[in-house]
Amino acid sequence: MHPYRSHTCAELTKGNVGQTVRLSGWVHRVRDHGGVLFIDLRDHYGVTQLLCDPDSPVFAEVEKVRSEWCIRIDGEVKARDDSLINPKIPTGEIEVFIRDLEILGQANELPLIVFGDQEYPEETRLQYRYLDLRREVMQRNMTLRSDVVASIRRRMWDQNFREYQTPIITASSPEGARDFLVPSRLHPGKFYALPQAPQQFKQLIMVSGFDKYFQIAPCFRDEDPRADRSPTDFYQLDMEMSFVTQQDVFDTIQPVLTGIFEEFGNGRKVDTDWPQISYRDAALWYGTDKPDLRNPIKMQIVSDHFRGSGFAIFAKLLEQDGTEIRAIPAPGGGSRKFCDRMNAYAQQQGLPGMGYIFWREIDQGVMDAAGPLAKNIGPERTEAIRQQLGLGVGDAAFFLGGKPESFEAVAGRARAVIGDELGLTDQDRFAFAWIVDFPIYEKDSETGAIDFEHNPFSMPQGGMEALDGDPLDVLGYQYDLACNGYELVSGAIRNHKPEIMYRAFEIAGYPKEEVDNRFGGMVTAFQYGAPPHGGCAAGIDRIVMLLADEMNIREVIMFPMNQQAQDLMMDAPSDPTATQLRELSLRVVQQDN
Amino acid sequence: MHPYRSHTCAELTKGNVGQTVRLSGWVHRVRDHGGVLFIDLRDHYGVTQLLCDPDSPVFAEVEKVRSEWCIRIDGEVKARDDSLINPKIPTGEIEVFIRDLEILGQANELPLIVFGDQEYPEETRLQYRYLDLRREVMQRNMTLRSDVVASIRRRMWDQNFREYQTPIITASSPEGARDFLVPSRLHPGKFYALPQAPQQFKQLIMVSGFDKYFQIAPCFRDEDPRADRSPTDFYQLDMEMSFVTQQDVFDTIQPVLTGIFEEFGNGRKVDTDWPQISYRDAALWYGTDKPDLRNPIKMQIVSDHFRGSGFAIFAKLLEQDGTEIRAIPAPGGGSRKFCDRMNAYAQQQGLPGMGYIFWREIDQGVMDAAGPLAKNIGPERTEAIRQQLGLGVGDAAFFLGGKPESFEAVAGRARAVIGDELGLTDQDRFAFAWIVDFPIYEKDSETGAIDFEHNPFSMPQGGMEALDGDPLDVLGYQYDLACNGYELVSGAIRNHKPEIMYRAFEIAGYPKEEVDNRFGGMVTAFQYGAPPHGGCAAGIDRIVMLLADEMNIREVIMFPMNQQAQDLMMDAPSDPTATQLRELSLRVVQQDN
Repeated sequence: MHPYRSHTCAELTKGNVGQTVRLSGWVHRVRDHGGVLFIDLRDHYGVTQLLCDPDSPVFAEVEKVRSEWCIRIDGEVKARDDSLINPKIPTGEIEVFIRDLEILGQANELPLIVFGDQEYPEETRLQYRYLDLRREVMQRNMTLRSDVVASIRRRMWDQNFREYQTPIITASSPEGARDFLVPSRLHPGKFYALPQAPQQFKQLIMVSGFDKYFQIAPCFRDEDPRADRSPTDFYQLDMEMSFVTQQDVFDTIQPVLTGIFEEFGNGRKVDTDWPQISYRDAALWYGTDKPDLRNPIKMQIVSDHFRGSGFAIFAKLLEQDGTEIRAIPAPGGGSRKFCDRMNAYAQQQGLPGMGYIFWREIDQGVMDAAGPLAKNIGPERTEAIRQQLGLGVGDAAFFLGGKPESFEAVAGRARAVIGDELGLTDQDRFAFAWIVDFPIYEKDSETGAIDFEHNPFSMPQGGMEALDGDPLDVLGYQYDLACNGYELVSGAIRNHKPEIMYRAFEIAGYPKEEVDNRFGGMVTAFQYGAPPHGGCAAGIDRIVMLLADEMNIREVIMFPMNQQAQDLMMDAPSDPTATQLRELSLRVVQQDN
Repeated sequence: MHPYRSHTCAELTKGNVGQTVRLSGWVHRVRDHGGVLFIDLRDHYGVTQLLCDPDSPVFAEVEKVRSEWCIRIDGEVKARDDSLINPKIPTGEIEVFIRDLEILGQANELPLIVFGDQEYPEETRLQYRYLDLRREVMQRNMTLRSDVVASIRRRMWDQNFREYQTPIITASSPEGARDFLVPSRLHPGKFYALPQAPQQFKQLIMVSGFDKYFQIAPCFRDEDPRADRSPTDFYQLDMEMSFVTQQDVFDTIQPVLTGIFEEFGNGRKVDTDWPQISYRDAALWYGTDKPDLRNPIKMQIVSDHFRGSGFAIFAKLLEQDGTEIRAIPAPGGGSRKFCDRMNAYAQQQGLPGMGYIFWREIDQGVMDAAGPLAKNIGPERTEAIRQQLGLGVGDAAFFLGGKPESFEAVAGRARAVIGDELGLTDQDRFAFAWIVDFPIYEKDSETGAIDFEHNPFSMPQGGMEALDGDPLDVLGYQYDLACNGYELVSGAIRNHKPEIMYRAFEIAGYPKEEVDNRFGGMVTAFQYGAPPHGGCAAGIDRIVMLLADEMNIREVIMFPMNQQAQDLMMDAPSDPTATQLRELSLRVVQQDN
C-alpha cells in the first residue's frame, strides 16, 4: 500500500465498505462522544469521518491528536447508520474505523481556527497565511483563481493567440505610476525597473511580426496601498494584435470574458449585449467612465426646463457658459424621506445639495408633484420634466446644476446609491459596456497646459490631420470595458506612425528629444516597418474578485502583502546586509523629513 | 472589406483564383524581372507572391517599396504557370496581381537583413531584436517556446495540478545564488528581494493544504553571465505535491516530459525507459551527475588488474588509500592515432595523460593488444581486462588512476569526446536518467568543514536516526534528471519535520537561531501541521534549447539581455533620477576597487 494514502478524503463511498484504506490529511475537528472519538479528516479534496473507540489498538495515541495535526491513518470503511448519513458531502455515507495512526506533522497551539467562520484580524491571517488558506473559503477562492486563469489561457489559445513572455527585469516603462527599481551590481549606480505593464514589449512583439500575443503578465507599480489594489505586483491578461481595428479587439476579447463569467459566475446572468458608449455620453448618463449598467438609471440634461424659470439658483447658473442642469430619475423613489436622505448624501459629498421633485397620488387618479423645486418652476415645466424623464406616481427626480465637471462625479455616486437603495440594481448579474472615444488630451484646469488624458500611445482618430485642429477635440482609438462599476479592461489601437507620435507628444509639450529619450526603443522600432496594431489588458485580480464576490484583493491572492506593503510571514522588506549594499554600490541615507 | 486583410499570407490557394483579396504584411524581397516587380509578402503565417506590372494603377508607388516595409495591398488572385508552382509553400500555386497599395509602415535602411542566412554580431541582433525576430528561425524558436509552455500547462492540468502564482516582490530566498534586491520606498532602508525560485512558497502552499501545485515560474538570480544562462530572469516548471514519495514525483513528471519531447522533438527518438542511477554510480560510470546516456560507454573499475602489476605508476598509486584505476572502454577506437589523440586530450585537460590498450588483428584470426600499458602488465592481465570490458579487435580502452575526485570530471569529458568521435553517441535521440541518492553533506577539502552538498531542504534518507551517524554517509531523497548531458530537472522530497531540519542544519554548522532567522517563515509554518511533500523544477529555457537544437539561451528568449546583463534596445540598466533615489532613501557610492 502507498505509504500515505490509498484514497483522498473525498473519495470513499458505500462501494468501499469493508475495505481497509489509508488516508492522510488534517484533523479538522475532534469530538468525543462518550469515549468514542469522531475525527473529521480533511484534505484538499474533502472530508472523511473517522471513528476510534477503545477497542482500537491505537486509541491512546488517537486521543492525543489535536486540530490541524497532519496524520496518516489506516482503517476499515463502514457504512453509516441511515440516520447518520450526511448527504451534503460525497463521503457522507461512510465512516472509517481507525486501526493505525501515524503523526505526520504536529501542530502548536493555533493562532487561528480553521473550521467555522470565526473572523480574525487581517494581520493574524496574513502572518499565519498557511492556516488561513486551509479555510474552505480560501481554498475555494484560490482554486477559482487558478481555474479562471487556466480557462483564460485555453480561450486565448482557441483564438490562435500564443503566450510570449516579456522581460521582468528591464527598463523603466513610463505608464504614469511609479516604477520599482532594481539596482544593477554589474553596472554600479545604474538601475533596472520592473515593468508597470508589458506595454512597450507587446508593441515590439507586433513590430517583430508575431501577429497575436497574449500573456498572463505580472505588473509592478510602487503605489500607495489601497484595499482594492496590491501594493506591489498584480496580474493582467495582456493581449495585442496586428492589422486590426478597435472592433476586431472587441470581437476577440468579448467571447473570452463572456465565457469566463458564464463558466465561473455561479449562475449569475451574464449580459451578452455590450453597448459601446462614448466617454462623453458615459459622463452624462452615468457620471463616470466605468458605469454600472446593472443600474437602469440614466441621467439626462434638463437645462431647458430651468432656463428663465422661477428657480432662481438654476436659472442664474445657466446664464454662465458651460453650465448645465442634469436630472437623475429615481423610479420608486417618490417619498420625501428618501428624497431628503439623498439630498443629505449630496451634501456629505461636498455639494450644496440636490434639488428634487417627487410625484405622488393625492387623490384617486390625481397626481401631485411635490418638493420645493416643483413649486418654484410651476406645474407646466414640472410636467415637461416628468414627461422627458418618463416618470410617474411613486417616482422622484434629483437635479444638479453647474459646470458638469463640478458635480458629475457626485451625480455618478448618487446614481449608484439610488439604484442600490431602491433595489433597482440587479445584484445577480454582470453588465458590461465598452467606453469608447476617449479624448486624447485634457487641459490642466489650473495651468491651462495640454497633456495626455490617458495613454500617450493611442492612435488619434483622424490621424495626423486631426492633430492640426483643437487638441481638446481629438478623440483616440482608446477604450475601457466597464463591468458592474469597475474598469475591467483598458486598451487602444496604438499610434504606430513615428511622425504622428512625435506630433502628438509635441502638442502635449514633449519635444522630440524627450520622446526619443523616454521611449527610444519603441519609437526607433516604429521606423523599421511597424504594422498597425492594438490590444488591451484585463485585470485578473479584479475579474476573480467579481467572480468570488470579494471586496478585498487580498482574498484572491495566495500570499499578498499587507496594506503597508509588508509580508509579515516572510519578513519583507528587510534590512540588507552590508555586503549586499557594497556589491550594489549603494548607501542608505536619512530622509529629509 | 476589412481595412487590413481578407486573408493571411499563408491562406490563398488555387481555390481563391479569380478573387479580389486584401493582404497585409512585410515586404520580404523585391525582384525586378524586366519591368515586372515580384514581391514576396510575409506575415507571421507565411509568404505570398505578389506581382506588379506597369499596367497596375499603383505601379509607380510599388516601385518605391523596399524590404521590411509594412504594406497593405489589394489584388487579384491568379494561378501560376505550372512551371512556376512552388510546392514548398502553401500559397505556391498562386500569385496576386497588385491593384492597390497602402504603405502602413516605412522602414529606414536596415541594420540587418531579414531574409537569407546572413550572420550578424549578437549586439546588432539584440539592439534591433524586432528585426532579428522577424527571421524564420526566430519566429520558429519563439512559437516553439510558446507551444512547449502551453503543452506543459495542459499536461499538468490533465494530471489535476493547478497553477498558483507566488509573489515576485518578496523576501530573500537563500538558494545559494545572489538575490536581486528591490529597495522599498515606504520602508526606507529596507529591501525586498526577487525570488531565486518559489521554493519556500511552494512548500508553504503544501502546508496550506493545496496538495498539487505547479507554476511556470519566473526566477531571478544575480549571477555573472554565461552563454547558457540568462543573467537576470529565467523560467522553470516548478511543481510540488503532498503525501508523496520520490517515485510518485518521478511517475508524475516523466509522462509530462516524455510527452513534450515526443510532441516537439521533430521525430527524434525519446527514450521511455528512464533508469535511476545513484549519484555514486553516475560518477563512476559517467564521470558526472548529468550523464549523456545517448553515449553507450560505461566506465568500470579495473584496479585489481593493476595491483602489483608491472605498470609501476598504477601499481604504486594503488598503494595509497582511496585510489582506483578506471577504464573507459572505446569500442571502435582501436587505432594508435585515435588513442594518441585521446591521450593528448587528457593532457590538455590537465591530467598527466591516459594510458591505453587497443586490440588489433595482426594475422588472420590472431589478436594483438597494443600500447605500452599492455606490454608492462603482460598478456594475462591484458586479456582479463579485455574480457571484463567486453572488447575485441578494433576496440580500445583508456585508463585513469588516482583518487577519483582528481580525474573523474576529465574522465567524464573524455567519455563524451570518445562517444562523439567514434560516432557512438546517437544525435537524434533524447536519453534520460534520474540521478538519485545524492549525499546531503560534503566535506570542504581545505577546511574539513561539513556543509550541505546541494539543497538544505531535502529529507535525509533514514530521517533523524541517519543524522546520528557519519554525516558524509547520509543520503537525501534528492534527485536530478539528466537529459543528453544536461541537468533538466532537480528536486527532492522535503524535510518537513522541524526537529530533523534543525538537527540537519546543526550538523552543517548553523545554530537554531540562524535557521530561524534565515528560513523563519517556513520553519514556523512546519510547526502547524506540515504534510510530507516533495517536488521538482524543470528548466524551461533548457528544454526549449534542446528541442530547438540551440546552444545559446538567447536564441529561445524573446528579449534577452546581452552577456553584460544589458538591454541595449530598451537601455537597461540606466541612471536613476535624483527624485527616484531620494524617494528610495538611497545614494550611489563609489566602489572601493
